[in-house]
Amino acid sequence: MTLTPFSSIDHAMMARALRLAERGAFTTKPNPMVGCVLARDGEVVGEGFHERAGGPHAEVFALEGARERARGATAYVTLEPCSHIGRTGPCAEALVAAGVARVVGAMRDPNPRVDGNGYETLRAAGIQVDSGLMEAQARALNQGFLSRIERGRPWLRVKLASSLDGRSALASGDSKWISGEPARRDVQRWRARAGALLTGAGTVLLDDPHLTVRLDDGVPFVPPLRVVLDPGLATVARGHIREGDAPTLYLHAPDARMPRGVDAQHMHVPVRAGLFDLHAVLKLLAERGVNEVQVEAGATLAGAFLAAGLVDELLLYVAPVMLGERARPLFEGLHIDAMTQRLNMRIVETRRIGEDVRVLLHPEAVPVSTAAAPPPPPAD
Amino acid sequence: MTLTPFSSIDHAMMARALRLAERGAFTTKPNPMVGCVLARDGEVVGEGFHERAGGPHAEVFALEGARERARGATAYVTLEPCSHIGRTGPCAEALVAAGVARVVGAMRDPNPRVDGNGYETLRAAGIQVDSGLMEAQARALNQGFLSRIERGRPWLRVKLASSLDGRSALASGDSKWISGEPARRDVQRWRARAGALLTGAGTVLLDDPHLTVRLDDGVPFVPPLRVVLDPGLATVARGHIREGDAPTLYLHAPDARMPRGVDAQHMHVPVRAGLFDLHAVLKLLAERGVNEVQVEAGATLAGAFLAAGLVDELLLYVAPVMLGERARPLFEGLHIDAMTQRLNMRIVETRRIGEDVRVLLHPEAVPVSTAAAPPPPPAD
Repeated sequence: MTLTPFSSIDHAMMARALRLAERGAFTTKPNPMVGCVLARDGEVVGEGFHERAGGPHAEVFALEGARERARGATAYVTLEPCSHIGRTGPCAEALVAAGVARVVGAMRDPNPRVDGNGYETLRAAGIQVDSGLMEAQARALNQGFLSRIERGRPWLRVKLASSLDGRSALASGDSKWISGEPARRDVQRWRARAGALLTGAGTVLLDDPHLTVRLDDGVPFVPPLRVVLDPGLATVARGHIREGDAPTLYLHAPDARMPRGVDAQHMHVPVRAGLFDLHAVLKLLAERGVNEVQVEAGATLAGAFLAAGLVDELLLYVAPVMLGERARPLFEGLHIDAMTQRLNMRIVETRRIGEDVRVLLHPEAVPVSTAAAPPPPPAD
Repeated sequence: MTLTPFSSIDHAMMARALRLAERGAFTTKPNPMVGCVLARDGEVVGEGFHERAGGPHAEVFALEGARERARGATAYVTLEPCSHIGRTGPCAEALVAAGVARVVGAMRDPNPRVDGNGYETLRAAGIQVDSGLMEAQARALNQGFLSRIERGRPWLRVKLASSLDGRSALASGDSKWISGEPARRDVQRWRARAGALLTGAGTVLLDDPHLTVRLDDGVPFVPPLRVVLDPGLATVARGHIREGDAPTLYLHAPDARMPRGVDAQHMHVPVRAGLFDLHAVLKLLAERGVNEVQVEAGATLAGAFLAAGLVDELLLYVAPVMLGERARPLFEGLHIDAMTQRLNMRIVETRRIGEDVRVLLHPEAVPVSTAAAPPPPPAD
């Protein structure tokens, strides 16, 4: 074990920078959230966060606040400062110019345009750079951005409302309303984080959702792209999903044609055995700069993403109601015949939301080697 | 609104008495749990709880501890002191003899042998009696006893383990093990409270459960009666459920006959249209002094109790796994075709138990009048 270069003050300052960063959750997309704190002798002399793509970076706000007190200070940044001249100047050089003595970073920026160059610039100017403080938290903060950069696909969250007996809708398809009003209000904040809200043609026809974001007055957000998987472009001429300010993109099979007179953004995606290539769908969205996708669809599409191993996060609102055995399952297409095939997840958090329970889950990490048989279950 | 006769000291003392009472949860059955605190000038001078049917009542322990300090004290009792000469002497007279000045009760004892007579005895002796302090908590504590006395049937708790997608077992019936070891250990404490553990012949054949209580060494409990609903007495000759110290009772259809050579407790229960009369089952158990029944069975029996409106409490362990749409539902026989027919419950508590979530639910109070249509759901 190596000695950590980080003090308790370092931890406190980085925690503050992470909280600051999160204030950009609804607005920075497609950029990562970044927070910066400038401190001298344990006292904050400047701080800021990245609010909007195209706007100043976190470091710029912090340096502006600190002015001459930045000289000799330590800069805490939740992500490696940029080294490229993008829409704003390179932050690494700004930190050098301001005379900071030390930079503590939570993580290296995997963006190929940075990827160590920011730290390099700082070190070359004689600044002490320590990276890796609270890296896990920093990675969790920007899971969407990191997924897009590192995996070439957005972070995928499936939002579902379920009855206590695990049903997503009645046999008729009726799902209005399984969860209560507080849960439906809570969903809005998760929508606001997302770069895209994705649904299927079936949901558009049955539920006619708006898929817009409704937050309290004055809370700023960048409206997520609405995406409809509609193989035959059957729903393009109708629905609330075409209303409002947010753009709507239809993804369809290569052989589908846009009906005459309909003006809509659309792109085709490979279809295999009658089903969309969901990997291709996500790649396409990543190329459009989508960090986080929130799927709000029925059991069929949710099940397809799950079966494809593409679900990173399940946001489940469980309502204390029973819909009975005839109702629709939570996921369709999930066929499990033995306990060893069961799909394991991990509960990240549970919280009461009104009368419902919100459960946030991540898939269980798949072991690298699956050659060994699982241990036998303990006896009762 | 009338002024409450209760001070904050009264509340604190009654809360203490309620906590004491609960220490008898595993041992007092079929008697109610009772706690007693004797206090003078805000100082506890004696306390006790009812530990075992046949053993001394809470008041006796408290008076023994207080000795001459009981004179002029206030006695806090979670249940009206008894007035009848049962297995131990009448507590009301003991309090009179000890010279207590005031008795604060949480609730009247609905047991016809008491039912106000205890308070009457005290008042006749010139003791001030104030009842109704923390009555809701006192009723919740003895929900089983009160159900038996007031409704003529035990409090019915259905314990189920469910996957996240609301499945109680695979299509094969395999349910070993949906929930984790901590959840299965937690179940033991709920079993220990119960007067009876009830299951069906199908579960006996498929899972061969012991249905015994396994607690940490030295924790005392009265073993609950094991009850098997077995219409044709098909399972009487076999199974772990016949092993151990706890008694096992088979309930069967009137025309079933005990196989030769098998020695087992058994009783017949009316059967209607091929199904047990579950009201009759519960009446029979109440007559045997069972306060709380814990049902540990499959989806069929659980569904039958739910459909009959006999479930007072649902103890659900939700594991973060998916078992898929072919798996067995949480409840069988629950047919719901419209949202207005859905079965509403109320979440009393949620708690993480190991990797699982324990959800405790009560049925939603059924409104007395159902003539008025429900209000329309809010628009999304």
